[in-house]
Amino acid sequence: MDFGFDERTEELRTRLLAFMDSHIYPAEPVYAAQAAERDDPWAPPPVIEDLKAAAREAGLWNLFLPGEDGGGLTNLQYAPLAEITGRSPGLAPTALNCAAPDTGNMELLSMFGTPPQRDEWLKPLLNGEIRSAFAMTEPDVASSDARNIATTITRDGDEYVVTGRKWYISGAMNPNCRVLIVMGVTDPDGPPHRRHSMVLVPTGTPGVDVRRGMHVFGYPDGTKGGHAEIVFDNARVPVTFLLGDEHAGFAMAQARLGPGRIHHCMRLIGIAERAVELMCRRALDRTAFGKPVAEQGVVRDWIAESRVRIEQLRLLVLKTAWLMDTVGNQGAHTEIQSIKIATPSAVEWILDKAIQVHGAAGVSQDFPLAQLWSSTRTLRLADGPDEVHKRSLSRRELAKYRS
Amino acid sequence: MDFGFDERTEELRTRLLAFMDSHIYPAEPVYAAQAAERDDPWAPPPVIEDLKAAAREAGLWNLFLPGEDGGGLTNLQYAPLAEITGRSPGLAPTALNCAAPDTGNMELLSMFGTPPQRDEWLKPLLNGEIRSAFAMTEPDVASSDARNIATTITRDGDEYVVTGRKWYISGAMNPNCRVLIVMGVTDPDGPPHRRHSMVLVPTGTPGVDVRRGMHVFGYPDGTKGGHAEIVFDNARVPVTFLLGDEHAGFAMAQARLGPGRIHHCMRLIGIAERAVELMCRRALDRTAFGKPVAEQGVVRDWIAESRVRIEQLRLLVLKTAWLMDTVGNQGAHTEIQSIKIATPSAVEWILDKAIQVHGAAGVSQDFPLAQLWSSTRTLRLADGPDEVHKRSLSRRELAKYRS
Amino acid sequence: MDFGFDERTEELRTRLLAFMDSHIYPAEPVYAAQAAERDDPWAPPPVIEDLKAAAREAGLWNLFLPGEDGGGLTNLQYAPLAEITGRSPGLAPTALNCAAPDTGNMELLSMFGTPPQRDEWLKPLLNGEIRSAFAMTEPDVASSDARNIATTITRDGDEYVVTGRKWYISGAMNPNCRVLIVMGVTDPDGPPHRRHSMVLVPTGTPGVDVRRGMHVFGYPDGTKGGHAEIVFDNARVPVTFLLGDEHAGFAMAQARLGPGRIHHCMRLIGIAERAVELMCRRALDRTAFGKPVAEQGVVRDWIAESRVRIEQLRLLVLKTAWLMDTVGNQGAHTEIQSIKIATPSAVEWILDKAIQVHGAAGVSQDFPLAQLWSSTRTLRLADGPDEVHKRSLSRRELAKYRS
Amino acid sequence: MDFGFDERTEELRTRLLAFMDSHIYPAEPVYAAQAAERDDPWAPPPVIEDLKAAAREAGLWNLFLPGEDGGGLTNLQYAPLAEITGRSPGLAPTALNCAAPDTGNMELLSMFGTPPQRDEWLKPLLNGEIRSAFAMTEPDVASSDARNIATTITRDGDEYVVTGRKWYISGAMNPNCRVLIVMGVTDPDGPPHRRHSMVLVPTGTPGVDVRRGMHVFGYPDGTKGGHAEIVFDNARVPVTFLLGDEHAGFAMAQARLGPGRIHHCMRLIGIAERAVELMCRRALDRTAFGKPVAEQGVVRDWIAESRVRIEQLRLLVLKTAWLMDTVGNQGAHTEIQSIKIATPSAVEWILDKAIQVHGAAGVSQDFPLAQLWSSTRTLRLADGPDEVHKRSLSRRELAKYRS
Repeated sequence: MDFGFDERTEELRTRLLAFMDSHIYPAEPVYAAQAAERDDPWAPPPVIEDLKAAAREAGLWNLFLPGEDGGGLTNLQYAPLAEITGRSPGLAPTALNCAAPDTGNMELLSMFGTPPQRDEWLKPLLNGEIRSAFAMTEPDVASSDARNIATTITRDGDEYVVTGRKWYISGAMNPNCRVLIVMGVTDPDGPPHRRHSMVLVPTGTPGVDVRRGMHVFGYPDGTKGGHAEIVFDNARVPVTFLLGDEHAGFAMAQARLGPGRIHHCMRLIGIAERAVELMCRRALDRTAFGKPVAEQGVVRDWIAESRVRIEQLRLLVLKTAWLMDTVGNQGAHTEIQSIKIATPSAVEWILDKAIQVHGAAGVSQDFPLAQLWSSTRTLRLADGPDEVHKRSLSRRELAKYRS
Repeated sequence: MDFGFDERTEELRTRLLAFMDSHIYPAEPVYAAQAAERDDPWAPPPVIEDLKAAAREAGLWNLFLPGEDGGGLTNLQYAPLAEITGRSPGLAPTALNCAAPDTGNMELLSMFGTPPQRDEWLKPLLNGEIRSAFAMTEPDVASSDARNIATTITRDGDEYVVTGRKWYISGAMNPNCRVLIVMGVTDPDGPPHRRHSMVLVPTGTPGVDVRRGMHVFGYPDGTKGGHAEIVFDNARVPVTFLLGDEHAGFAMAQARLGPGRIHHCMRLIGIAERAVELMCRRALDRTAFGKPVAEQGVVRDWIAESRVRIEQLRLLVLKTAWLMDTVGNQGAHTEIQSIKIATPSAVEWILDKAIQVHGAAGVSQDFPLAQLWSSTRTLRLADGPDEVHKRSLSRRELAKYRS
Repeated sequence: MDFGFDERTEELRTRLLAFMDSHIYPAEPVYAAQAAERDDPWAPPPVIEDLKAAAREAGLWNLFLPGEDGGGLTNLQYAPLAEITGRSPGLAPTALNCAAPDTGNMELLSMFGTPPQRDEWLKPLLNGEIRSAFAMTEPDVASSDARNIATTITRDGDEYVVTGRKWYISGAMNPNCRVLIVMGVTDPDGPPHRRHSMVLVPTGTPGVDVRRGMHVFGYPDGTKGGHAEIVFDNARVPVTFLLGDEHAGFAMAQARLGPGRIHHCMRLIGIAERAVELMCRRALDRTAFGKPVAEQGVVRDWIAESRVRIEQLRLLVLKTAWLMDTVGNQGAHTEIQSIKIATPSAVEWILDKAIQVHGAAGVSQDFPLAQLWSSTRTLRLADGPDEVHKRSLSRRELAKYRS
Repeated sequence: MDFGFDERTEELRTRLLAFMDSHIYPAEPVYAAQAAERDDPWAPPPVIEDLKAAAREAGLWNLFLPGEDGGGLTNLQYAPLAEITGRSPGLAPTALNCAAPDTGNMELLSMFGTPPQRDEWLKPLLNGEIRSAFAMTEPDVASSDARNIATTITRDGDEYVVTGRKWYISGAMNPNCRVLIVMGVTDPDGPPHRRHSMVLVPTGTPGVDVRRGMHVFGYPDGTKGGHAEIVFDNARVPVTFLLGDEHAGFAMAQARLGPGRIHHCMRLIGIAERAVELMCRRALDRTAFGKPVAEQGVVRDWIAESRVRIEQLRLLVLKTAWLMDTVGNQGAHTEIQSIKIATPSAVEWILDKAIQVHGAAGVSQDFPLAQLWSSTRTLRLADGPDEVHKRSLSRRELAKYRS
């Protein structure tokens, strides 16, 4: 259980920290200004392309992806790097080509893609030339129980026909989003975990209607490609667009989620660190009722509590990463669930306190806190609400004592 | 300490409940659709004017305002009505001409306005013909301590010259907002509570630059006139535009806040009731892991806890209203602070749980929950953060035991 | 919904407040000293008898009991008096003959007792000459579900034969405890709510074995008669000792609980007030790190939060009392459950903070806080844990929206 | 940052786990029975001596003490062992001669004792022949600020004269407690951190009056030697009984606290694990309202939340131990404070839930939960209340951003 940073990690951390200082933080106001002025509300601000080029040149590219296709890092090596990108989560992950949902999609394509699929989609994704989306969640069912997913993928000759309604398909409003990985029912009579498959659906396919961008607490998240509602009405793709095995979609989705969850948690720790920094700076800068806010007892309590929580979260995330590397995602199941339960709610708490210290500025567009809060809070329900994960985790705990 | 509803209250409640059913709830989707389609992002959807006409005809108009200028209700009579409007807080308060910030401004004009000021601004406000705003909060100081306010109002001959920067001036983006009540320093050397005055500044006045709309967790609140940042650069108004006495601004602002706070809390209780209704309906409608969400133990716990908290809040608000009626706002100071401390945080908790039960829908634009959450959470810091009010309340508690 | 104090209440409050000052508070150290020195660890300190005589003389006697047998007060009249006795909960309720479990037992005997039962037990209880206990809870089943109770009460000729094990039978270790009201199964095949009966079992009855005193967080509560574990092994009583109707025990137990719960909650508010007073006094008296503890921001936050919570709880208790008086215990069911859910946990929080301000003294025998905490926390599980009440309350809330 | 168990740790863990099964758990009921029957309420139950002999024979002795005098383990090696002893905190630490306050006293004597002091007290302590106590806390000042300590230690010729009042001196009621390490003022005019010294005071010394045992939530903790109030009235000891340097008491006390705090936290994690086990077993064993308590959603939530919190706490404790080993106690200051802040409150929460699942049994003497709760909660205020540690920790956090 060694969480220390090895040489490669230290070297990449140094390089990434320098890149944050030289490129990312200075680009934040540029990004905001471009976002305010662009015509297409779903297009990423152009500065992102400059950052991508710079990151690639700096050797900070595709670090998330293990194996030859990507940076070849272990989870434990990637964790502290992902944390750093979390300090500027709107820019840094995208700049490094390490942003969801492409990361999970590249993982799927890397593991399950046929050679033509890899040529067509994995390569340009790895090059940062196109974006992609993952279409699983549906508005009409409790998607926390993946077996509820109702979109149908029906074979008709050499084609699959996709029909159903999806929403909160992150990134799919981006004009540069070229392909959707769609999950749907291919065998309605199969056993519950062997009913679904995934198919690749190019965004221009007839019958694919991108209806609107869903909001997250008022944020359309347009600079990140939004969260689309998409109606599939007999959209047809060749059978060669099946990803992985037929009826294996449930297991593939689960496999995709493990790394996705830990990446989120890693970045959330960076978000929390940014929040503490902002909270401290503001508390030192402002005076109320005759003394600096930093000397108000309640504010001090929040700062200390934030630090103590962050330290605990980071260690649990590192242990989880180490376990995933050593015993595999399955063996790290309890820990992955634990960080999914613990991290968003603790970071939400920290952001809430940072907001409170900022007063009205905290809820405004002038500081990143309110938007970070909205995405963090949403992680308490995205990809299975906390309550579902707790139920599952408790079952394993109770099983230890069942006679 | 009789909180029972008297005959007039019962009659108005019946009428208002009917109006909610016949007019307000049916108008909610219309309002949303018009909001999505309008050209001016700061203009209220036109259905609002229809609702205002209907409310006026139904005798549900200016109920908030005591005395001859308004409905002539006591706080205790108004409380249950305001609660009902809180169930649809984007539409109902405006429809009844009972929406902030105009309510507080009408109170000020009703109490302190000269006859010409009343003619010019109070009358059209009472008629719902124009809107107004209250410009107090500033970005550069901790406005929780009102003595920090730095905008200057300097007499120059027959004019006052206003210079300073204000933000989160609610309603001021509305094209129909015609006048701002601006608070600023008129006597920088006076005793801390005798330094400020209020002047009426028509929105077209040269030197008044409405810069932008501030956001609240991603919401520009455009349908409600937004929250403006305004720069005053030597804006001049005649000395006759002084509201009330010179240097009495601090006391007037305090006087304005008491009713404002209780109105907010009354409506928050309606918001909480709406949230519980939505939470219950959703929990009954959805199934996950083989049983209705309404049978999940944790969800049941939330519902019960919500009910128990609402009952307590409502009683405390009613007691506060009763005290304001019987011993005056000053005598009800502790209670006004208590509801300001207790209500937003409890209602925020309830909204959070209702959101969680809704999953992604809860954070979306398809349900009112996320936006209600954002405005509720903001009340934990608006008009003095909770911590400031607790500090002050504890001082009075401790004083009981000081020897 | 008038919670104001009427003339009789005001008069009794004045008298009781004077009695607290003249008799109860001065007796607290005497009581503690006598408790430390007595030989029988289950005997009440003798000062209690003096206080009883004085209270009776002062006309402060049996105030809890409605109707001719007692003080004839409504719940709303009694509530503020019970709160006051809660400020010294070890002495005042007993001194006024208003202490559990005798109060509930007197209610049962007053409502259901036959004339001989009233002569034998109600009269001396009303006179404060004997004590009694209520034997319901059992160690071997989840007593939160009263239908689980397993002790059998079997008719055998002219006698009932009682067999089973009970625990946490409060007051039964008191040498002056003369009678137990025992609940057990008389009709195992009846419908779940028509299976149990209550019988009166004099404490000396053969087959009644008072085994030991159960502790509450280390407190044997000996001065209050402890909490006995009792084994009934074929204990026989005449059939005339049946209380009320056969098989009606469940309903009678429920009837007993309503007033019991509100009395507990009323007193808890007095406990909370005492805790706030102690917390404030200590905070004013002590200095740490160069300033009075009363000026530490976190402590101020606790004091304010305590005040705000108490105000809400008191109003909900008063409303519940008023409802019980006007629509009956059944009509006040939701509110009785609400105060049962809300009060112990809030008062526990307040006591925790008062303890924290006292440091080691707070957990010691030199201040009442730790013992008050232990009994308050226990009320979160006694008489149905909070979770059971929330489950039930949520069911009624959900029922409003079921189609 | 390698927290893995090395070979020695693994070997000791295996041995200790076997010892828990073979000796400690079977002795728990014996210990309780002997405790109930002994004559001297402050004498440890005799089974403890048997356990001590067995532990020594098993090579599980003085593991806490680094260096030649003790087991020679690092903090990281000792941590998982201390956690295991925490599963039976009344027996296991004492059985292994690893119980407070002797541990800290042995550390002091090992570091600072003169050869005669080592012969006289360290040797028999290391042999488990005698017990000792540490007399620092005083009833009349806020001891959280150690500079407040007021007991005087005045040199008079070849003697020190000790005068003052101490309380909560753990272990000092034990008839086998032979020596007190007393902290008091030797130089009232010195700089605040150079005013105090420590002297060794044998318990029989004239002028040492052990007044009474202080309680902890009703528990006198008699089997562990209680918590004494001691009055020193001109108690005289030879100057050779000075421990360490004169006026260096403050620094020595701080040095003693670091390991003490981490030992407490290690054991608390064992306590939490025991609580989760009891909670799960009870939840599986009991049925209420027609289904096992283990299937109640709220209980499942508690179990999962407990597991997630424990995992985080353990990692933070391990990191702290590792830091103490690698950069020293001073370098681990923030982490020592962090675990002191995080652990007691989280474990208190877990114990509270375990109690709630047990119902009345949870607060009784039949399960260890209530007593464990009382000692755990007390750690939130012992040795500096949480609030003091948070204040200090936040100061260091803020310092990072001060310009």
